[in-house]
Amino acid sequence: MLNIEKALVICAHPDDEVLGLGGTIKKMTNAGVEVNVLMFANGNEGYTDLKDKEHIVEIRRKEREAVKDILGIHTYEAYDYGDYAIPANETTYKMCLQAIRKYKPDIVFTHYWREYNTHKAVASIVSDAFWQAGWNASLDLGEPWKAKSLYYFEVIELLAHVSHIVDIEATFEAKMEAMRAYASQCTVVSGALQQIEGKALMRGAQAGVKYGEAFLKSIDKPEVVR
Amino acid sequence: MLNIEKALVICAHPDDEVLGLGGTIKKMTNAGVEVNVLMFANGNEGYTDLKDKEHIVEIRRKEREAVKDILGIHTYEAYDYGDYAIPANETTYKMCLQAIRKYKPDIVFTHYWREYNTHKAVASIVSDAFWQAGWNASLDLGEPWKAKSLYYFEVIELLAHVSHIVDIEATFEAKMEAMRAYASQCTVVSGALQQIEGKALMRGAQAGVKYGEAFLKSIDKPEVVR
Amino acid sequence: MLNIEKALVICAHPDDEVLGLGGTIKKMTNAGVEVNVLMFANGNEGYTDLKDKEHIVEIRRKEREAVKDILGIHTYEAYDYGDYAIPANETTYKMCLQAIRKYKPDIVFTHYWREYNTHKAVASIVSDAFWQAGWNASLDLGEPWKAKSLYYFEVIELLAHVSHIVDIEATFEAKMEAMRAYASQCTVVSGALQQIEGKALMRGAQAGVKYGEAFLKSIDKPEVVR
Amino acid sequence: MLNIEKALVICAHPDDEVLGLGGTIKKMTNAGVEVNVLMFANGNEGYTDLKDKEHIVEIRRKEREAVKDILGIHTYEAYDYGDYAIPANETTYKMCLQAIRKYKPDIVFTHYWREYNTHKAVASIVSDAFWQAGWNASLDLGEPWKAKSLYYFEVIELLAHVSHIVDIEATFEAKMEAMRAYASQCTVVSGALQQIEGKALMRGAQAGVKYGEAFLKSIDKPEVVR
Amino acid sequence: MLNIEKALVICAHPDDEVLGLGGTIKKMTNAGVEVNVLMFANGNEGYTDLKDKEHIVEIRRKEREAVKDILGIHTYEAYDYGDYAIPANETTYKMCLQAIRKYKPDIVFTHYWREYNTHKAVASIVSDAFWQAGWNASLDLGEPWKAKSLYYFEVIELLAHVSHIVDIEATFEAKMEAMRAYASQCTVVSGALQQIEGKALMRGAQAGVKYGEAFLKSIDKPEVVR
Amino acid sequence: MLNIEKALVICAHPDDEVLGLGGTIKKMTNAGVEVNVLMFANGNEGYTDLKDKEHIVEIRRKEREAVKDILGIHTYEAYDYGDYAIPANETTYKMCLQAIRKYKPDIVFTHYWREYNTHKAVASIVSDAFWQAGWNASLDLGEPWKAKSLYYFEVIELLAHVSHIVDIEATFEAKMEAMRAYASQCTVVSGALQQIEGKALMRGAQAGVKYGEAFLKSIDKPEVVR
Repeated sequence: MLNIEKALVICAHPDDEVLGLGGTIKKMTNAGVEVNVLMFANGNEGYTDLKDKEHIVEIRRKEREAVKDILGIHTYEAYDYGDYAIPANETTYKMCLQAIRKYKPDIVFTHYWREYNTHKAVASIVSDAFWQAGWNASLDLGEPWKAKSLYYFEVIELLAHVSHIVDIEATFEAKMEAMRAYASQCTVVSGALQQIEGKALMRGAQAGVKYGEAFLKSIDKPEVVR
Repeated sequence: MLNIEKALVICAHPDDEVLGLGGTIKKMTNAGVEVNVLMFANGNEGYTDLKDKEHIVEIRRKEREAVKDILGIHTYEAYDYGDYAIPANETTYKMCLQAIRKYKPDIVFTHYWREYNTHKAVASIVSDAFWQAGWNASLDLGEPWKAKSLYYFEVIELLAHVSHIVDIEATFEAKMEAMRAYASQCTVVSGALQQIEGKALMRGAQAGVKYGEAFLKSIDKPEVVR
Repeated sequence: MLNIEKALVICAHPDDEVLGLGGTIKKMTNAGVEVNVLMFANGNEGYTDLKDKEHIVEIRRKEREAVKDILGIHTYEAYDYGDYAIPANETTYKMCLQAIRKYKPDIVFTHYWREYNTHKAVASIVSDAFWQAGWNASLDLGEPWKAKSLYYFEVIELLAHVSHIVDIEATFEAKMEAMRAYASQCTVVSGALQQIEGKALMRGAQAGVKYGEAFLKSIDKPEVVR
Repeated sequence: MLNIEKALVICAHPDDEVLGLGGTIKKMTNAGVEVNVLMFANGNEGYTDLKDKEHIVEIRRKEREAVKDILGIHTYEAYDYGDYAIPANETTYKMCLQAIRKYKPDIVFTHYWREYNTHKAVASIVSDAFWQAGWNASLDLGEPWKAKSLYYFEVIELLAHVSHIVDIEATFEAKMEAMRAYASQCTVVSGALQQIEGKALMRGAQAGVKYGEAFLKSIDKPEVVR
Repeated sequence: MLNIEKALVICAHPDDEVLGLGGTIKKMTNAGVEVNVLMFANGNEGYTDLKDKEHIVEIRRKEREAVKDILGIHTYEAYDYGDYAIPANETTYKMCLQAIRKYKPDIVFTHYWREYNTHKAVASIVSDAFWQAGWNASLDLGEPWKAKSLYYFEVIELLAHVSHIVDIEATFEAKMEAMRAYASQCTVVSGALQQIEGKALMRGAQAGVKYGEAFLKSIDKPEVVR
Repeated sequence: MLNIEKALVICAHPDDEVLGLGGTIKKMTNAGVEVNVLMFANGNEGYTDLKDKEHIVEIRRKEREAVKDILGIHTYEAYDYGDYAIPANETTYKMCLQAIRKYKPDIVFTHYWREYNTHKAVASIVSDAFWQAGWNASLDLGEPWKAKSLYYFEVIELLAHVSHIVDIEATFEAKMEAMRAYASQCTVVSGALQQIEGKALMRGAQAGVKYGEAFLKSIDKPEVVR
């Protein structure tokens, strides 16, 4: 699964990439994989004190920069949608098509459809764009690119089915550090760090390793076996 | 289920609250529960004669006022969306978050996801808002509030699963009266009153009472047992 | 199923009507059925060479005209939405309601819900409009009309359940000719003609005929048996 | 749906045929349709007083005879399985195949899969036998017979989807009389008669008639349209 | 949920009751609730060395006795089915009906349907028996008893939906001790203790407590609200 | 997917292995993979003339021998269950466990759950045995063996999701020859050869090759990524 050159992560909010696959990102970048991240929301709702309302977007931008260094992410492509305002429409769909054609990833990671509204919207457009990016059409969005596989990660809801568990023992501490770097969000979601640890332990236990991250490989589009 | 102080009903159109849970609303208000209702649509499509097109919104506003008295509803928060025009977007999502934080209900009632377009949109945003209203975020929408439970009612489609049937024998007549007060809609949906009676009898029969209203308690978010 | 006077096909893109039910359309028009087609998208993304970008909409308009003659379609009602830009909203919903009330079809054909984004949007609004067109409401959109049945056809995904297979042996060549008339799309989807032949053979084999087209009759709304 | 010559009902227990489709059976027999009923269980568990244990099977046999006359059923093929002991195995499967080949029905009625254990077993074997009875195999079970359609009726659970509602106003009283003839069961299921009335009213209201019975037409096997 | 007098746990194998709800059992017995456990299998397959084959059933019987003391279980009703040989048939169904009528529990706990074969069989018969035990029938199996609620616990698969998380911080150590008492199984399932800890931490984190156990309340049968 | 040393196919009836994956078997054996096949039924129902009833089992045994040579199958492990009589019980479950431990396959192929009765039974026991064969238990059934992957093939129903399409252009003729060797079945299922061709063309077209066979990789059990 991870024996690749390039990966593209498309998520909704700043911190979803850490919660969902922070350990796997670090594992990949440690191994020399180029990991690019596209995120739609600017984090504007994630403040716990009214006086932070004006600054929260800037705060989260800085946090994201720190996370970039911690996880070794190559590029963050970050957009300015509000946290509750990511639509599944022509504009966002084309952003996904364009990103896949630009970064030419071997594999794509995104949200699972059974999450809440904006995560669901991202899951839906990425699932379709993953496939349509390979069509011989819409050439102004870049040359057609067929990524090999699409994986769903888990943030809010546990995956109903898990096809892969990645051993993240060696990078678990980096995941925790990245989450701590998203300091503003550790107060929004109470017990965020404990949740990360509990989930990593449980997914690890299912795989017979210390810490794990769970993924579901999409089975919507067939792979051709020659 | 109904041993509470405050309930919030969020529905799409003027009359959904009566069709779905008119008897239960009256049962609650009789028992001293404060029931607030938020509805999105203004009823602009519900006319059966072209000459009523200009007046239908005003007609339904007046009907709603009558229903308020009949059922003992505390507040109607009524918006001006067209009947076919309730979007699931940032604006409507924030309206739900804000209403939950403002009314601080013990329980929330809304549409079931397996209904048609606008009902589906309301079901979706309320299900997410019920949960996110309790997050320590978006403080300009009010103080975080965790309602205890979320219940889905049935209007167009029967619920596929029913977790609760409320005995509405004592308030069935008030439900019928409220529906008759929505006089304009009794001509739109032919046999509306017969449908109410048939459904109430069948749900009652399932519960061993004369008249019933059916609900499905959401199982999406865990309740903590200490 | 086809012993009728009028049929209405509502699809997303120019060529979906051929891929999904070209053989059945021709079979109906050969038998004197009036077949009207409403399509939302203008085909703006379906070019395989950047220099065609400016002309593709016009190219596809002309292709559609040729298909009209080949299949004997009575009217094409074609809108100007971008290929990735068909929303499920009040406007498109009313377009469907209005078309059903205007053409007064015995049966309606549309996309299946398990396709990709824009197809899914069309599937959703048509399924609801099929039913709400018969309501005694929204009279400025035309007189209420209750079509008898709604059928889903298959374009991208195979139908998970198939309720009817239409024998298209006599009109299979017309289907192929219509697809060849959509010449621009035969380069977008590589092997489009082979796909049509393979699917027609397989669906035919399931029914014991040479070539077939598969449909799923909607079971969402009950038919009354007197 | 009912414009036929012969129908076959396959159910689990004595009274399922009345609860599920008593009104429709009478409507068919009134119209000259030959209706045959195959039931697996002998009713051995349906006693409410220990002293009836020895006699209950005989009691229910006599009740069934009375129901036969009331509804105008042509043949009851009744087996001797215990009420909780109907297996889905080779023997019961062959009984279904054989019955379909023997009675040569135009349509078959059976339980819906979403009921409880024995009903689920019957739903499963009949659904498969409906289709395999038409295979050119197992000739010692009779000549291959392809029935036109398979319909599921509702007894314990409401159907999640309803494709047909039969108007049973003219035969509703016969249905009630048949249920009263199953006197032993009216004490087992408290409020059985009220349940029948409530459900008939609600299904009728959904169809715009006084009393109705709901069915789901199976969409598992395609119908060929020539 | 746990403010009750009596609970009945029905599971497949010796250790399922510990893996699924050991902490909750101990929490109940600490609070004075009478907890009875019915298990079908004798544990005959759970040996990791051929020389233990003859003794494994006896070994597990003794382990179960130790667990009884550790968790404060009132009665173990243990049957002699092979580990891969628990059928869903009349006999096991009646065993469940009889147990529910005999122990008269307020709530029943059992496996979730989405587990593997024998767990699935138990889930199925208990779900039906929970409801049919309240029928006025089969009086030789005891007086009709309507338990209030039915809860599913998780052993092999995570629950797809979780309605309740029980805080088991105070009894987590007893759960671990009980699992260690099932010493023979700690070698069959490698990392069994780690799995218990990981899952308890993750379920705890979801609920904001240290250790948790997850349950899904059945929504198949309505509760009557008077 | 096919870059392996050993494969095990577990199916219900003689001919399911050809219909489902005849081309893929031949492709594997051509490449030196050892392919073993376990089938449960003896074919006793597959006669189209009563005078063949006595001989059909022997006829199909001989046909199977011919198919073995045509496809290059290493071993047929064929049991004597009747065609409608394959139970999902302890005996058949242990047969699957034992076969997996004996043949030590890299990958296992079996029926998809959404087929009819006996196919469903095989799908269910193989799915569980695939996973439990790797447990450190039931040592008299052989040493624990963890196969890498489990794939479902399609016989009666099309797969609802397809994860892999195998290019069988080079072995399609062998598949047809193998089916013709099952001469007795070509009269049972009318148009069997046409069905094979139609399906192979359609699956091929989906993959951009001439002939294909479709598979769904099981996602029930996670693969560990180290």
